[in-house]
Amino acid sequence: MPIRLSSLFLRTLREDPAEAEVTSHKLLLRAGYIRRAAPGVYTWLPLGLAVKAKIEKVVREEMANAGAQEVFFPALLPREPYEATGRWTEYGDNLFRLQDRKKADYLLAPTHEEMFTLLVKDLYSSYKDLPVCLYQIQNKYRDEARPRAGLLRGREFVMKDAYSFDITDEGLRTAYQAQRDAYERIFTRLGVDYVIVKADAGAMGGSASEEFLSPSPIGEDTFVRSAGGYAANVEAVATPVPAEQPIDGKPAARVVSTPAAATIENLVSVANEQAPRNDRAWSASDTLKNVVFALKSPEGKRSLVVVGLPGDREVEPKRAEAAFSPNEIEPATDADFAAHPELVKGYIGPVKLTGGEAQKVLGKDSVSDIRYLVDPRVVKGTSWISGANEREKHVFDLVYGRDFEADGNVDIAEVRAGDEAPDGSGPLELARGIEIGHVFQLGRKYAEALDLKVLDENGKLVTVTMGSYGIGVTRLVAVLAEANHDDKGLIWPEAVAPADVYVVAAGKDDIVFETAERLAAELEARGKTVILDDRKASPGVKFSDAELIGVPNVIVVGKGLEQGEVEIWNRHTSERRNVAVNSAVEQF
Amino acid sequence: MPIRLSSLFLRTLREDPAEAEVTSHKLLLRAGYIRRAAPGVYTWLPLGLAVKAKIEKVVREEMANAGAQEVFFPALLPREPYEATGRWTEYGDNLFRLQDRKKADYLLAPTHEEMFTLLVKDLYSSYKDLPVCLYQIQNKYRDEARPRAGLLRGREFVMKDAYSFDITDEGLRTAYQAQRDAYERIFTRLGVDYVIVKADAGAMGGSASEEFLSPSPIGEDTFVRSAGGYAANVEAVATPVPAEQPIDGKPAARVVSTPAAATIENLVSVANEQAPRNDRAWSASDTLKNVVFALKSPEGKRSLVVVGLPGDREVEPKRAEAAFSPNEIEPATDADFAAHPELVKGYIGPVKLTGGEAQKVLGKDSVSDIRYLVDPRVVKGTSWISGANEREKHVFDLVYGRDFEADGNVDIAEVRAGDEAPDGSGPLELARGIEIGHVFQLGRKYAEALDLKVLDENGKLVTVTMGSYGIGVTRLVAVLAEANHDDKGLIWPEAVAPADVYVVAAGKDDIVFETAERLAAELEARGKTVILDDRKASPGVKFSDAELIGVPNVIVVGKGLEQGEVEIWNRHTSERRNVAVNSAVEQF
Repeated sequence: MPIRLSSLFLRTLREDPAEAEVTSHKLLLRAGYIRRAAPGVYTWLPLGLAVKAKIEKVVREEMANAGAQEVFFPALLPREPYEATGRWTEYGDNLFRLQDRKKADYLLAPTHEEMFTLLVKDLYSSYKDLPVCLYQIQNKYRDEARPRAGLLRGREFVMKDAYSFDITDEGLRTAYQAQRDAYERIFTRLGVDYVIVKADAGAMGGSASEEFLSPSPIGEDTFVRSAGGYAANVEAVATPVPAEQPIDGKPAARVVSTPAAATIENLVSVANEQAPRNDRAWSASDTLKNVVFALKSPEGKRSLVVVGLPGDREVEPKRAEAAFSPNEIEPATDADFAAHPELVKGYIGPVKLTGGEAQKVLGKDSVSDIRYLVDPRVVKGTSWISGANEREKHVFDLVYGRDFEADGNVDIAEVRAGDEAPDGSGPLELARGIEIGHVFQLGRKYAEALDLKVLDENGKLVTVTMGSYGIGVTRLVAVLAEANHDDKGLIWPEAVAPADVYVVAAGKDDIVFETAERLAAELEARGKTVILDDRKASPGVKFSDAELIGVPNVIVVGKGLEQGEVEIWNRHTSERRNVAVNSAVEQF
Repeated sequence: MPIRLSSLFLRTLREDPAEAEVTSHKLLLRAGYIRRAAPGVYTWLPLGLAVKAKIEKVVREEMANAGAQEVFFPALLPREPYEATGRWTEYGDNLFRLQDRKKADYLLAPTHEEMFTLLVKDLYSSYKDLPVCLYQIQNKYRDEARPRAGLLRGREFVMKDAYSFDITDEGLRTAYQAQRDAYERIFTRLGVDYVIVKADAGAMGGSASEEFLSPSPIGEDTFVRSAGGYAANVEAVATPVPAEQPIDGKPAARVVSTPAAATIENLVSVANEQAPRNDRAWSASDTLKNVVFALKSPEGKRSLVVVGLPGDREVEPKRAEAAFSPNEIEPATDADFAAHPELVKGYIGPVKLTGGEAQKVLGKDSVSDIRYLVDPRVVKGTSWISGANEREKHVFDLVYGRDFEADGNVDIAEVRAGDEAPDGSGPLELARGIEIGHVFQLGRKYAEALDLKVLDENGKLVTVTMGSYGIGVTRLVAVLAEANHDDKGLIWPEAVAPADVYVVAAGKDDIVFETAERLAAELEARGKTVILDDRKASPGVKFSDAELIGVPNVIVVGKGLEQGEVEIWNRHTSERRNVAVNSAVEQF
């Protein structure tokens, strides 16, 4: 039976709904695929459900091809397993928490590492049972601070999450590769453009990790790639560490008066005026910018940290977020500065020089006792112009490893187009993308926390190593809509269109409707799914709905019928051509 | 590809798990279909997921046959729509409530009347759009006080819930019948035994309502039926109201001393001693038992109520619960009695007779001002022996309509086998059942609360009338398991078995495994799904797992192979027979 528009639960909208900003969201609302139920929480209408089901089918088939077995976990889970791994707290405000009538703590699961680990522990006990790879397609919950762009960043959403269990690191690598390959097949079959980039493992722990990003100007992720094949999420780009320099022979550090130099730009021009170099002019990259943050731990503890980085680079918020996770980052407040009078805003530096004596101002055992981290470019022997911790004064020729030290490195400076790739494969270019998949080698973190061990060949208990592999199923609907549309509406890839063919009865005569019905029936007899516009409405209304809804293959039964012809539209190529009624079905 | 036991994520258990009480729960755990994640919250293993998917497929097909369209709502919903209908409060402790990071109130939906109503309001506006029937198959949440029996009463569970929308009452009746018919087809196809009984509409509001119960001794519902075709949930049985009797000529009410008669049994024997009748002996049904309850409203308000019912009947808790819903019922406490000294425990009655003067003790404008309700059998002109509100004293010949009145009727007395059916279709018998489906004519309650109106043919706004139709999908897995097993394990109906055929390679020789593989491949080529036991394990282990897992059709490739034969088991009939290897596949 075709899907009949005369009875389909659908109402298309002529105008863009006010709640939507990005194109996919507008079109999915206008074409009647979804409706909003709450911020970041959506209802699926019949057409949307059809697209979602097609994606899920492809995912299931490729998971089976990869040897993964399907299970299904609850969304409502007890606190204890997440407490054991620390994630009950680490997730912070992103976790939906609740209590049952007995005041027991529960959560709505954002991801299921703990439960899969416990399930395998429950069922399996020997190396003979492994490897195993399990997955589910299931509703997930994250209390996003800023749900946005419809299905792109929701608070209730569907994920395929898979987990592999192996004895050896090599087994894990094999399982990881099998999932990675499956992801490539899935995205190719669905017609999604993607790039695979190195990723930051973030809150999930673990070692190797890659993301599948679909390039899109509305993407929230920035990624880099080089002509030589390097590709990484911007959060995961490791800045190449320059060679150390000899300290001997460097001029001594000295305090220079730098009036009105509280910004890097002013500082550079003041430096070139007050203390010009012989060889070249000072530039922003000669200065050391010291940025004060407050970190808030998941337990709510707040502490300050100062990061020193070259003055020509801004802090990239996402890289900072990843580097300091699970802590949240807040700007330092006036109260913070008031509590630390040794920090002079605009003139902060690691040391204070007084009469040739250097006093440590930042870092462990310093005056402030504030943790001090530096950019990887700050290596032994490098010279910097830094704040002198006095108003309108800077220290010049401050040499790392001679005049100051840091408590460690942190790599949170912005990555810029033209920067060298960490693997030397050439300059980087930047682009934006939407994360559609993520593969992780988790390692033994969860198995250790939850005591998942099996007996090995020698009868010894060994800890299992795990991988975790996610695809955002509902997000993919939005990604596909975002990438496949024109100004008239959606243009779905065949693999996910809500029907194979869309038949329009464009006319008033019975023969038009009868022919449309007959074509629909013949297509269905050949195994095609069909949407049939059998409404009593004007051809104009029907055409615009056909374009909006976005089934790529359209048959219009209309005026041409007198000549025994129907019109066939291909929404991908915009081609429209007349064919004989009797050969219409064969076109598909 | 067959499901191979050598790699299937499965571990069968020889012993009954301590957590399980009922057979279906034990077997579903032992055979590796489900695992408990939290009280009333379950994880689905691959075999369980296969059974669940088969049930969902049948439900979807019959919903489509009934013209219902599938949508999918969130489980996480905002408070407001449920506030508008009063259910945010009415659900009491049964509702999982939570707050998001902005402290906005949310719930995990126990059922979706409000959201469907709002969705139709959003999309539709005219009588031309109706009727429409929508459904979803979706995770529901109820914070049950006592989750029990595995999937039978869970806190996270899957329901198919459908909702019909019509202009006219007749349209609603047609939609109701269509769903009712679909339910009959679904349960028949799934091989579930069921009876359709009149139901109490309970917290859902609305008028006509029927339940589909699967008869089972472990069922939580009691239902009645008569040989003449009456069938009802015990909560919905309306007691036939006897004819009124003439008051004239009845003896006057009098106080009789009844020492040690605080129980009905003692009262009857004391009555027959102290004030014997001429015509017959007093019996318990001549006495009026006045039971004091406290009702707790969803808002937490507590108030007392007294119910007068014939002394030979107990209050049936489920009928009382239904009658007083959404209030919760609590026993009256010592404090309640202390606050009402006019109520003398064991001797409570509607009036107090002092020197020929009757004082109203129960009911509106009485001494106690406690609401007083009576059983439908208490009609005008009936005489009762009631407590006299004095220790060891009763009033005899207390006539309703002459000596006392009530504030209303309430039908909460137990129903007993042999009671007359309300429709006169003969005596009732009682049985227990598990609710597997429920169909409601909701009427206009939700449409009114949420203002769902459409324009009728005359351009006038009319309120839509609704029906609500539920099937417990995950509960059905348990119901089917409960009804289909023997002492060795499960015996699934074909329609829901996790595979069509179960092939056991019972032996060590390669030829056994090769033959089993070949048979599995041939069966799959014919469109059958197969579980293949290709493990290196003893035939004994394999046979008991085959019986436990419960695919009804089993092929054993074993000893008979030397004679060119395999054994075919039918777990339903217990038949086992040898057939030639080459004809084995044709048997299915």
